Amino acid sequence: MIIKKNSDVSEEFLNKEGMNNVIKKILIGPEEGSENIILRHFRVLPGGNSPYHTHKHEHVVNVEKGKGKIVDGKGQETLISEGQSLFIKGNEKHQFKNPFQNPFEFLCIILNPDKNG
Amino acid sequence: MIIKKNSDVSEEFLNKEGMNNVIKKILIGPEEGSENIILRHFRVLPGGNSPYHTHKHEHVVNVEKGKGKIVDGKGQETLISEGQSLFIKGNEKHQFKNPFQNPFEFLCIILNPDKNG
Repeated sequence: MIIKKNSDVSEEFLNKEGMNNVIKKILIGPEEGSENIILRHFRVLPGGNSPYHTHKHEHVVNVEKGKGKIVDGKGQETLISEGQSLFIKGNEKHQFKNPFQNPFEFLCIILNPDKNG
Repeated sequence: MIIKKNSDVSEEFLNKEGMNNVIKKILIGPEEGSENIILRHFRVLPGGNSPYHTHKHEHVVNVEKGKGKIVDGKGQETLISEGQSLFIKGNEKHQFKNPFQNPFEFLCIILNPDKNG
């Protein structure tokens, strides 16, 4: 059993490949012995965004703090905030954006793409 | 893409099979189109606990609110609280307990046992 403090996990500041002012932490993944489920924490700073992109793996999301926008495959934007959950299918185009004044934080769970294509 | 409010999800009050004062919600699962990853929310009321049990599927946990105790395979108890993450291996004995005064809430992610044995 692995027990961690999220605050001890090192941050990766992402400002490349369509990522803009996004801070990523891998809370649980292969390093903790989890070969299948990967639990990541994202903090999108005000004005930040993820790329508007698509990939094979699906996303399960829980909004932890603040609010932001999710863009779907048709380009439609929906406001999402703390206490909401999302399911984004594999190969569905999507983007997270934070046009607001406070950080937008969410957990994003994926299946390990190295093991699940 | 599915977008939900967690507060809209119906609760299941568990007081059976070793569960004592535990409230469960399935936030994302097969009903939302997620065939592999299942995101559940648990609220363990003061004095409540899950069974001290073992099963094949692994758990990825993020503590959302309050504090509680996790019992590991050796019977050792560790205090866990908001802002901590856990990985519990498959077949590792474990139990969640709340001996405190306030609800203890966590997200628990599993792979769909129907699809992943």
